[in-house]
Amino acid sequence: MVYDVIILGGGAAGYSAAIYARRYLLKTALIQGKMPGGETATAGVVENYPGFVKIDGYELMQKFEEQARLNQTDLVVGHVESIQKQGHCFQVQFDGKTLDSKTIIFALGSEHRKLGVAREQELKGHGINYCVTCDGPLFKGKRTVLVGGGDSSVKGAALLADYATSVLFVTREKELQAEPVNLKRMQAKKNIQVVYENGVKELIGEKKLEAVELLKAVDGKTRVEVEGVFVEIGLIPRTDLPKTLGVQLDERGNVNVDGMMRTNVDGMFACGDLTNAAGGFKQIVTAAAQGALAATAAYQDIGEHGEQLVCELHGKAS
Amino acid sequence: MVYDVIILGGGAAGYSAAIYARRYLLKTALIQGKMPGGETATAGVVENYPGFVKIDGYELMQKFEEQARLNQTDLVVGHVESIQKQGHCFQVQFDGKTLDSKTIIFALGSEHRKLGVAREQELKGHGINYCVTCDGPLFKGKRTVLVGGGDSSVKGAALLADYATSVLFVTREKELQAEPVNLKRMQAKKNIQVVYENGVKELIGEKKLEAVELLKAVDGKTRVEVEGVFVEIGLIPRTDLPKTLGVQLDERGNVNVDGMMRTNVDGMFACGDLTNAAGGFKQIVTAAAQGALAATAAYQDIGEHGEQLVCELHGKAS
Repeated sequence: MVYDVIILGGGAAGYSAAIYARRYLLKTALIQGKMPGGETATAGVVENYPGFVKIDGYELMQKFEEQARLNQTDLVVGHVESIQKQGHCFQVQFDGKTLDSKTIIFALGSEHRKLGVAREQELKGHGINYCVTCDGPLFKGKRTVLVGGGDSSVKGAALLADYATSVLFVTREKELQAEPVNLKRMQAKKNIQVVYENGVKELIGEKKLEAVELLKAVDGKTRVEVEGVFVEIGLIPRTDLPKTLGVQLDERGNVNVDGMMRTNVDGMFACGDLTNAAGGFKQIVTAAAQGALAATAAYQDIGEHGEQLVCELHGKAS
Repeated sequence: MVYDVIILGGGAAGYSAAIYARRYLLKTALIQGKMPGGETATAGVVENYPGFVKIDGYELMQKFEEQARLNQTDLVVGHVESIQKQGHCFQVQFDGKTLDSKTIIFALGSEHRKLGVAREQELKGHGINYCVTCDGPLFKGKRTVLVGGGDSSVKGAALLADYATSVLFVTREKELQAEPVNLKRMQAKKNIQVVYENGVKELIGEKKLEAVELLKAVDGKTRVEVEGVFVEIGLIPRTDLPKTLGVQLDERGNVNVDGMMRTNVDGMFACGDLTNAAGGFKQIVTAAAQGALAATAAYQDIGEHGEQLVCELHGKAS
């Protein structure tokens, strides 16, 4: 049994790729981790996926997964260790098992760089956030800290300031590295205070965040009462696996794809947060659209290599 | 009062653009026709928008519209006659009214291509139809002809066959270009006959359609008695308005956009079915993603031109 497509990653991009792959009647497997739903599942309330005024990210991903399942995607739980390319076919190894496929779609997402302080994980979604566009509106009329330094964090701060009462922008840098237009927009906000060469040392609060302890005093105090902290110190795309197969990354470490989500390796596609599609704008709806495109490209690719494409794996034709 | 962004068109792309524009707290108006929901609203059952296993297209678009409304988009019903560009600002004229805006997002979609035979217009609604989902139920127990060739027509034929006694599928092509899943579904219907490299030459009937004359005989006859004809031969992007402003089209007549949905005219963006985004792959989820991108680009554009951007319209600063 050889799959037409194996999708790696169970998030918005991966599930959408599976839904579309099945529209094309491709034999489709999706391999996902033990915690399905990717970044979205942990994002808390989602208000920007068109079709749902307000939905929990985990619930939304359950709907995506269910839709992939009802469209006869083989959903497999496992951790992929390696992929071998043999001619035009791929051999995917995970948890002591092997699946063969004509094409591969990487939808492994990325992870937010963490602050690296105690209790960060427990307080995630209870005051600790990693995406202003996603969660900023939840902090209307509240006091916040934003930890950043780069362009995304500056853009995030400007947007957050429109919701929150106050934004204490904490950076370990001597100056912010951002596009002037974004810097200017942020500087126009009266409720943002930037503190340089500082950082968050400790998160305070039992069930939800109540305050942070800074490395150095600001206005004479190291403890700052806040309802929300936004950590905007970058994303790390999960590219270890594609890299072993010669998939090219861009200068920021994202998988480089064309408009149809093709990588430089024939038969390999990528979609969602680990790619540089849509200029690095990473949203649920863009990931879902990219999944649809990747499946379409995989379908075209299989068509171009002929219906009779045979994968010779395990030393035999299958 | 000057809007930050005016979106033209109430379909998947337009509503999504509005939802995202409001995430950026842009003052947003969306001008739509009397029949909101665009192409999707007339598409019948939708099974490929991630998040909904199965939903009526009209119902899905109601959800999108509601989400735009709840995010404080000014939803306006009207037919836009013209847009004037003055410096970096735009003056949108419709139904004797004028709205001013810093940016414009075109999300006007596309319209159904006509057969181009005599009396087509008079018989529209009297036997001539362009949307199986909308009008198919009217042909229960009746004989029909469907003119098509592409994926939508194949989906339409399968649905029409559930209502009509017979469907004569007439295509000028040598083979049908459709998703295999849709082709397979259509081929399972016993009451569909496909005839290739043929076409409708003439429509016969006084007040309502009674028969069609084909270019070539089928089963020895060129005249086929039918109560209904469904024309499913493609979509024409609604680009008349953008063209008057110097917006460039590609060789297929779609608005040419970059990866962020920018047109060649500063301050003007486009998304959804009237564009060539995503290689012309036109789906609800891709339109929605493009709407999000267009809103993001509009937000950036306004930032680049400064918060103090003043629109001098109607001969005065506003």
